[in-house]
Amino acid sequence: MRKSIPIHYCTYCGYKVTITVPEGDNRERHVCLECGHIQYRNPKIVSGCIVVHEEKILLCKRAIEPRMGYWTIPAGFLETGETVEEGATRETWEEARASVTDVHLYQIYNMPRIAQIYMIYRSQLDNPQGFGPGPESLEVRLVDESAIPWDEMAFTVINKTLERYLDERRNGVFTIAVDSL
Amino acid sequence: MRKSIPIHYCTYCGYKVTITVPEGDNRERHVCLECGHIQYRNPKIVSGCIVVHEEKILLCKRAIEPRMGYWTIPAGFLETGETVEEGATRETWEEARASVTDVHLYQIYNMPRIAQIYMIYRSQLDNPQGFGPGPESLEVRLVDESAIPWDEMAFTVINKTLERYLDERRNGVFTIAVDSL
Repeated sequence: MRKSIPIHYCTYCGYKVTITVPEGDNRERHVCLECGHIQYRNPKIVSGCIVVHEEKILLCKRAIEPRMGYWTIPAGFLETGETVEEGATRETWEEARASVTDVHLYQIYNMPRIAQIYMIYRSQLDNPQGFGPGPESLEVRLVDESAIPWDEMAFTVINKTLERYLDERRNGVFTIAVDSL
Repeated sequence: MRKSIPIHYCTYCGYKVTITVPEGDNRERHVCLECGHIQYRNPKIVSGCIVVHEEKILLCKRAIEPRMGYWTIPAGFLETGETVEEGATRETWEEARASVTDVHLYQIYNMPRIAQIYMIYRSQLDNPQGFGPGPESLEVRLVDESAIPWDEMAFTVINKTLERYLDERRNGVFTIAVDSL
C-alpha cells in the first residue's frame, strides 16, 4: 500500500502549507496561506475480487511490498474514472490475468486507522485455464479451501473476508456485510 | 462539492510536477522528477443518511454551493480516521443536528465522471424534535413522501436513492443496491 507522505507544499502554487482549521471548517487541514488552496486528504477505496472456480479460490503471491511473498486475492486502489466493480475487475486482470463473471458486492471493510475502505466482490473465473501472474504477482494459484495458506496470507482483512465467504458458502446464502478492523 | 484543482507542484519538495507514467505503472500520474514523489488522485467517498421518523423523511436546504437553496439529505465527504457509517452519522449531525439509530447501509452509487462513490445509509431519527439546521443548511424539515420537492432537489443521485427507498418501503423489503450515474 502507498504510505502517507507528509504534505509540505501547496500543489497549486508551490508555497509552504500551514496546518490550520480553515474558516467554516471544524478540523485541521493543509492550507496554503498564499493562494488559499486547501489540500484535503480523504480515505481511499481498495477494491478486489474473490475469484472462484468450482470449489477453488484464486490466490496471488505478492511480488511487491508490502508483504512481498505473501498470499492475497487480487485487489488494489480504485482509480479516478472507475466504478468500484470496474476497479475490482481491473485489479483482477492486472494481478492475476483473470477475467471474471457473475460479480457481486460481498464485503465492505472499514480500516479507519489507515484511511482505507476495502470493497470486495465475489465472482466466477471466466475460463479455468485463463489466469497467471501479472507484474505485481510472483505466482497465481487456484486452491481448494483446505490448501489456503492462512498463515502466509498478506492481510488480515482478506483472511477475515475469505473466512466469512467460506462459512456462507457452506450455508448456501451470501450476504453483504460491513465490518471494521 | 470540492472542485478538482490542477496539481502543479510537488507536495513533498515543492518542485514542479510532470505528468508521466511512472515505472511499473500503466497510467499517467503527477510525478516529481526532483524527489520522486508521486501525487495520486483517487475517488472520494461521500457518505450520508436517509433519516426517517414514522413515514417522514428528513431533508436539508443547502446553505452552500453547489446547489445552494436546493434540498438534499445529510451527506458529505468521508474523513480520514472514520468508518463510512461514522462519516454518514457525523454529516447528519453537522448538517441537520440529528442523531440517528438503526443505521444500515442502503445504497452505493458510483459516479465515475466526478470520481465520487456515494454510500448512503437508512436510519431512524433518534428524537422527533431533535433536529435543525447546522451551518451548511438553511432549513431542515421532516416531510411526508407527498411533500418531497422532487424538482427542487440538489442532486440526481439523491432523487434516485430516495425513489428506490420509497418503492422498497411500500413493498416492505429493503435491499442494498450498487448503481452508477
